[in-house]
Amino acid sequence: MHVAAINIETEQQARDHQNNLTKPRGALGRLEDISCWFAARQGKVLPDTLQPHIAVFAADHGVCEEGVSAYPSVVTGEMVKNFARGGAAINVLAKQCGANLSIVDVGVVSDLTGFDGISHQKVKPGTANLLREAAMSEAECAAAIAVGKAEAKAAIAAGANLLIAGDMGIGNTTASACIICRATGAMAESVVGFGTGVDEKGRNLKVDVVKGALTRISGYTDNQLLQEVGGLEIAAMAGFYLQAAESGVPVIIDGFIASAAALAARIIEPEVINWMLASHISHENGHALALKALRLEALINFEMRLGEGSGAALIVPLLQSAIALHNEMATFESAGVTDKDE
Amino acid sequence: MHVAAINIETEQQARDHQNNLTKPRGALGRLEDISCWFAARQGKVLPDTLQPHIAVFAADHGVCEEGVSAYPSVVTGEMVKNFARGGAAINVLAKQCGANLSIVDVGVVSDLTGFDGISHQKVKPGTANLLREAAMSEAECAAAIAVGKAEAKAAIAAGANLLIAGDMGIGNTTASACIICRATGAMAESVVGFGTGVDEKGRNLKVDVVKGALTRISGYTDNQLLQEVGGLEIAAMAGFYLQAAESGVPVIIDGFIASAAALAARIIEPEVINWMLASHISHENGHALALKALRLEALINFEMRLGEGSGAALIVPLLQSAIALHNEMATFESAGVTDKDE
Repeated sequence: MHVAAINIETEQQARDHQNNLTKPRGALGRLEDISCWFAARQGKVLPDTLQPHIAVFAADHGVCEEGVSAYPSVVTGEMVKNFARGGAAINVLAKQCGANLSIVDVGVVSDLTGFDGISHQKVKPGTANLLREAAMSEAECAAAIAVGKAEAKAAIAAGANLLIAGDMGIGNTTASACIICRATGAMAESVVGFGTGVDEKGRNLKVDVVKGALTRISGYTDNQLLQEVGGLEIAAMAGFYLQAAESGVPVIIDGFIASAAALAARIIEPEVINWMLASHISHENGHALALKALRLEALINFEMRLGEGSGAALIVPLLQSAIALHNEMATFESAGVTDKDE
Repeated sequence: MHVAAINIETEQQARDHQNNLTKPRGALGRLEDISCWFAARQGKVLPDTLQPHIAVFAADHGVCEEGVSAYPSVVTGEMVKNFARGGAAINVLAKQCGANLSIVDVGVVSDLTGFDGISHQKVKPGTANLLREAAMSEAECAAAIAVGKAEAKAAIAAGANLLIAGDMGIGNTTASACIICRATGAMAESVVGFGTGVDEKGRNLKVDVVKGALTRISGYTDNQLLQEVGGLEIAAMAGFYLQAAESGVPVIIDGFIASAAALAARIIEPEVINWMLASHISHENGHALALKALRLEALINFEMRLGEGSGAALIVPLLQSAIALHNEMATFESAGVTDKDE
């Protein structure tokens, strides 16, 4: 694959434009950086309004049999139905930010056949237990990545110029912790969190499971990381990010799971991170470490830990405001305002 | 005056409602606190959508003759005209968040008589030089406060249920620094910043001016602080906050100037802070100190330092999203999702 290039010249022109707007230079802080970031990626000094598409990828995790989650696996399928009916957080947030929303079953254990409002792309009903064996075969992992790529391609073809991947999968903080530990070199104790709400004992168990899985794969290469300890939805999210970078469309990284998928995508293609913007710092331990490894700086810290793409969707209005300010404010000259340097 | 009471019982009912929504309890982090905060203040378990009103108060500062600002005083009037024509940052942000916007001349040096789109409430054309004498007389300060109160009252009567005060006034970071130093006990060196963009030498001069003003008023009471070292727009903003608290309507505090006005309002009526929500941490030195003294915690840090109410307007969509999530998400029962405790 080939990651799309960023237009540095347009970015500089956008910066020059910012410096002529009726405000002290730099006074809009990170909003100025955001509009120039989009200018460089859209190749337009005045970037287009954002048309976001959110894809929520859902799958189950064999590692749940170790007791790592506060909720049973059946909740994954129940929540997918909740997404399809419009009752979940991501439904509300998608509406608030004017995003299209697609729900993709990449590997839910429950049989969702015939249920409306879901893209049925099940690779297999849940991964194997990553503590004991490979979560996926190489072919299954590739198939899940392909699901994510196809989803991004379709969204872009339909007019999206900003992509968000969300996740739903009971047990997926354990898989993500394995990926983040291995990709960053951090200790399991620093990365494993309380997920959807296990207690301290549950968290200790998760730490042991992650350590066990990391020991199991210690002789494997980084290229085997995703299939060995990942998840079907995490692989699809990685594919989604890879396609976005190849097509030259920015993505917003959500929380803990999304960052694990971003790290997995970076192993496949290091330049993929050029197209990523971080949204929030999750309350889940280790998310800040993952963002640092990706060289991304989050915009907000609301102590969220929901997944579904919720943190990424939440910040879309801030990005829209950055672009609107950039495109619509008067210049010193047009407004007849005395500049500092005059 | 009498500050409106907050409905603690409704807040608890709102919290119970949050705990039944289809997400792990607490997983929406600060968004959950925000919706319950509004529930308590609107007295509604499901709070109404926010109808924001932004009032930008503009005035000039006699202290500019000391050379404390990077821009000349004439810019205040020029920017007011820019607001009236719709070309400034706050115009764009008001449109983005669906807010009404009013521009109030409380004390601009330039003669704006007859200029459309401005509420003409000039108390006097700029304050006196706060380093050498009282910025305002007691009567002038009271008149400026009354302008702000009337503005809040009119906005509420027109249907606003969320109020934002913005500022425009070359030199007003110096006046605000005096208020923040005196109200928090902090050193001038910790509070004075670079304003619209003075250099290190200019900042040192500002520090000396603030120290000089604080020495001049060292024998005065806190009740004299606003008239001695404040600004006409700062007094109007304080009045705006006081009226909001009396009428029981929440306000969002913007940046450095707004926090100084909030501290001035608190001197007049300590309970006024119950109706305040902090938006952002300004890049201007000392803002974090002011927020801490107000016992407010900002939602974002975008390194903004513009004023005009820009930081407060920027976060309105985040508050709307918090309320929409609270009101529109399905419950575990309605969605047929298995809860953790079952």
